[in-house]
Amino acid sequence: MSTIKEELYEIIFEADTKIGKIFDVSLLVIIILSILLVVLESVPSIERDYHSLLKISEWVITAIFSLEYLLRIGIVKKPKAYIFSFYGIIDFLSILPSYLGLIMAGAHGFMVIRALRLLRIFRILKLNRYTKEGAIIIRALRDSRIKISVFLFAVLTMVIIIGTIMYLVEGGENGFTSIPRGIYWAIVTLTTVGYGDISPATSLGQFFASVVMIIGYAIIAVPTGIVTAELTKLSSKPTSTQVCSNCMAEDHLENAVYCYKCGKKLN
Amino acid sequence: MSTIKEELYEIIFEADTKIGKIFDVSLLVIIILSILLVVLESVPSIERDYHSLLKISEWVITAIFSLEYLLRIGIVKKPKAYIFSFYGIIDFLSILPSYLGLIMAGAHGFMVIRALRLLRIFRILKLNRYTKEGAIIIRALRDSRIKISVFLFAVLTMVIIIGTIMYLVEGGENGFTSIPRGIYWAIVTLTTVGYGDISPATSLGQFFASVVMIIGYAIIAVPTGIVTAELTKLSSKPTSTQVCSNCMAEDHLENAVYCYKCGKKLN
Amino acid sequence: MSTIKEELYEIIFEADTKIGKIFDVSLLVIIILSILLVVLESVPSIERDYHSLLKISEWVITAIFSLEYLLRIGIVKKPKAYIFSFYGIIDFLSILPSYLGLIMAGAHGFMVIRALRLLRIFRILKLNRYTKEGAIIIRALRDSRIKISVFLFAVLTMVIIIGTIMYLVEGGENGFTSIPRGIYWAIVTLTTVGYGDISPATSLGQFFASVVMIIGYAIIAVPTGIVTAELTKLSSKPTSTQVCSNCMAEDHLENAVYCYKCGKKLN
Amino acid sequence: MSTIKEELYEIIFEADTKIGKIFDVSLLVIIILSILLVVLESVPSIERDYHSLLKISEWVITAIFSLEYLLRIGIVKKPKAYIFSFYGIIDFLSILPSYLGLIMAGAHGFMVIRALRLLRIFRILKLNRYTKEGAIIIRALRDSRIKISVFLFAVLTMVIIIGTIMYLVEGGENGFTSIPRGIYWAIVTLTTVGYGDISPATSLGQFFASVVMIIGYAIIAVPTGIVTAELTKLSSKPTSTQVCSNCMAEDHLENAVYCYKCGKKLN
Repeated sequence: MSTIKEELYEIIFEADTKIGKIFDVSLLVIIILSILLVVLESVPSIERDYHSLLKISEWVITAIFSLEYLLRIGIVKKPKAYIFSFYGIIDFLSILPSYLGLIMAGAHGFMVIRALRLLRIFRILKLNRYTKEGAIIIRALRDSRIKISVFLFAVLTMVIIIGTIMYLVEGGENGFTSIPRGIYWAIVTLTTVGYGDISPATSLGQFFASVVMIIGYAIIAVPTGIVTAELTKLSSKPTSTQVCSNCMAEDHLENAVYCYKCGKKLN
Repeated sequence: MSTIKEELYEIIFEADTKIGKIFDVSLLVIIILSILLVVLESVPSIERDYHSLLKISEWVITAIFSLEYLLRIGIVKKPKAYIFSFYGIIDFLSILPSYLGLIMAGAHGFMVIRALRLLRIFRILKLNRYTKEGAIIIRALRDSRIKISVFLFAVLTMVIIIGTIMYLVEGGENGFTSIPRGIYWAIVTLTTVGYGDISPATSLGQFFASVVMIIGYAIIAVPTGIVTAELTKLSSKPTSTQVCSNCMAEDHLENAVYCYKCGKKLN
Repeated sequence: MSTIKEELYEIIFEADTKIGKIFDVSLLVIIILSILLVVLESVPSIERDYHSLLKISEWVITAIFSLEYLLRIGIVKKPKAYIFSFYGIIDFLSILPSYLGLIMAGAHGFMVIRALRLLRIFRILKLNRYTKEGAIIIRALRDSRIKISVFLFAVLTMVIIIGTIMYLVEGGENGFTSIPRGIYWAIVTLTTVGYGDISPATSLGQFFASVVMIIGYAIIAVPTGIVTAELTKLSSKPTSTQVCSNCMAEDHLENAVYCYKCGKKLN
Repeated sequence: MSTIKEELYEIIFEADTKIGKIFDVSLLVIIILSILLVVLESVPSIERDYHSLLKISEWVITAIFSLEYLLRIGIVKKPKAYIFSFYGIIDFLSILPSYLGLIMAGAHGFMVIRALRLLRIFRILKLNRYTKEGAIIIRALRDSRIKISVFLFAVLTMVIIIGTIMYLVEGGENGFTSIPRGIYWAIVTLTTVGYGDISPATSLGQFFASVVMIIGYAIIAVPTGIVTAELTKLSSKPTSTQVCSNCMAEDHLENAVYCYKCGKKLN
């Protein structure tokens, strides 16, 4: 019995064996199908025409996910730890709404929670060769997180001041009915999204908006600059992954023969 | 006969001889004219006023392309390989719609297939001095294709989650009639295109949209950073890996013959 | 007495002591609350429903700020210098509108001046660990200020010429009622904001707009390039300028004690 | 007489003397004023209210520019070369419309030609300390001009194909009345301007537009990457400006003591 449990553990939680890989790919396909289902169900015309097909597919997927959920609980060493882990909760929320739908009629809002199934994908992707490249991007973003926070704080301050000024300059009749609306407009403008649902109508407002847009030019350059500088640093001079066996120093130069810190030969 | 065939081959498929170059430039001009024709034909007022001129030009160009197509089949060593190659199919699709128009009346949709003629340009450009620079751009994009795929996958996930939330928050009366529409809005916003055909109308929706736009700020920096880091790496003057045997100096210029530090000859 | 004054000075103006830090954080929270108050007051529905709550909060915050203002004047060595300093004026303008509201009824415009309270945040942030990273961004922007000025001047020139041409091409019936409007449109387009409140309607105008947008492509790359190049320069790990006296190796890490190449101690 | 002419030449054409600098700054101010005049005249309400003031200012400026134009012709060594030079023609076009207005009534279109006065600014700026930084930007753009051309050509091809597909998918009832319109929409979308004057209304069109926008993400990164890589190269590793006196080799390393090409000592 224990051997079957161990084998199942390897299949479901690891990806080293051939069956483990097949399991992961199948799960990936089912997750994508389940998401497609949620998305398609929200389209009125499709929901009307293919009602029974969607309903049946939903129950098939719920059955598979439920089985998988119970299997995971049965196999894992510490079931409680799994149930209350991030992925455990996501797994549970992926099947809950379908069962709730049986009890309460028309629980529309609950149905959309199923979109959280998407997050299940990240567990599978962990095991995948794309991870290394993704890790570089994430490391670049993490290394520059303080710079980006400072930048976002500065942008937030600017956006509040700009929004307040525009609220005063344009006033309610041109769509700037409150300061929050002005701030919304300022964000739409500074990020160069520019919906046009609110746009300045007075000459003074348009002049001021022009200044804001020109400033936005220099501003949009900053996050790009931060991330690029970080990525350039990470992807250019690759420091060796060696660790000095004597003093544990890291970040040696690629061509280093001796440790820069204690002088011992590296090996 | 064989020599004429060989000569024609050199003119049509190569660009080393003078006549070969003239052939290429002429073909380039005719291709551009043929594209212009397709574009202009789609404008109702031009189509009405210059109907016969456009029709005649179309048949002249079709005649030239047909002749060229037959010549290529006749000259090439393996006609079958050519016919079913990428460019062979493009060449065939460039002339097919005009002939089909004779048989079936008003085959409007087919006519636009002629726009594929544009792809013929790339064959000629292969031979051109701009290729080297283009190759650097393509290499930078190819080298960063895994990073970009990871990034696009992350964006796709975000866009589905954001679209679902906005569908719940705003609802159908503000244009968010289904999750696909919400996803469409999320893409329009995150890419800072911002048409404004769908835009949030509720306070909560506008607040959430602001958060999305601010996130989009950091996100748009990522592909730029990836491509820039790659281009910087490719275009930064590569210093030679030589070390002077006399003074151990490194970082010599690629074309260095003598050591910049001690003046000894490098080997 | 003098010791109390000195202690208070340390609490209010410095952030080295524990109480000093508590003071700073409390002030930060109050400033953010006071800003939130100004923002919420501008929303008609909130102002109507929570009128008295907002009024009371306003007076509590005004009282705290007034006390703090008087304390600062009493404690500081040169009161006059403080009062007429940048932050002294901001501090004064943060409380003035509330008192003016007592004398003059409905001084709406004055009320919004309170949004200047936001600037007070920067004094507190001076003392904060995020400053170093912010300083790098600011230094990058300052180092590239001449390049950015030249760029902005070039953009301004382009925008005037483009705006004038569009005024001539499109004319008043399509929204281009004057050259300033044309310039406003040119800025909206070149910065890729694209509200759509004014957009070309004639074929010639749309063709010209397309050219402007394509040019804008290359142009938006310039400020990003400037800031990125500067940030890359500033953030690239500066290798030490030391040379090993034994083997002449260069490019040692900043913190290197031993030569990475021959293992001798650096000096 | 000749000395006066020489002195005037130094004042008007050079900027080394004190009077020469005063002349340049005054001219700069007048040019900016003259541009402001053209811009303000185009605003209907201002033209109505300040008609006489604008008219008088126009004639004062025309008088100054005419005098300056005649002076330049009188002073310069080769008057003909000046008259038919780029700046000579600009100078002439700056004053022509005002005189033409005397002969032909209501020559509105001609009046706007005066906006070309703006180009006169560049002559003065030549002499200015901002030029060096501007030169770096221009050099970066010039060095990357082939890469940018290749990129623009690729964008143009994409835009034609995308525009044709959208014309087929959406059709005339949704604003895509012809292929040129489709191309216009494709440019508006790919450059992330997004006016929203034409936007896809069908599901297929919106799906396709989403793909285009996601592609646009990777595409907008390319010109930025090109210009940034170039600017980084120009602004980082500064190669020495030394030239080897023996073999004329350039681009030596900053710390080079011996020529890398012929081995002679640099000095």
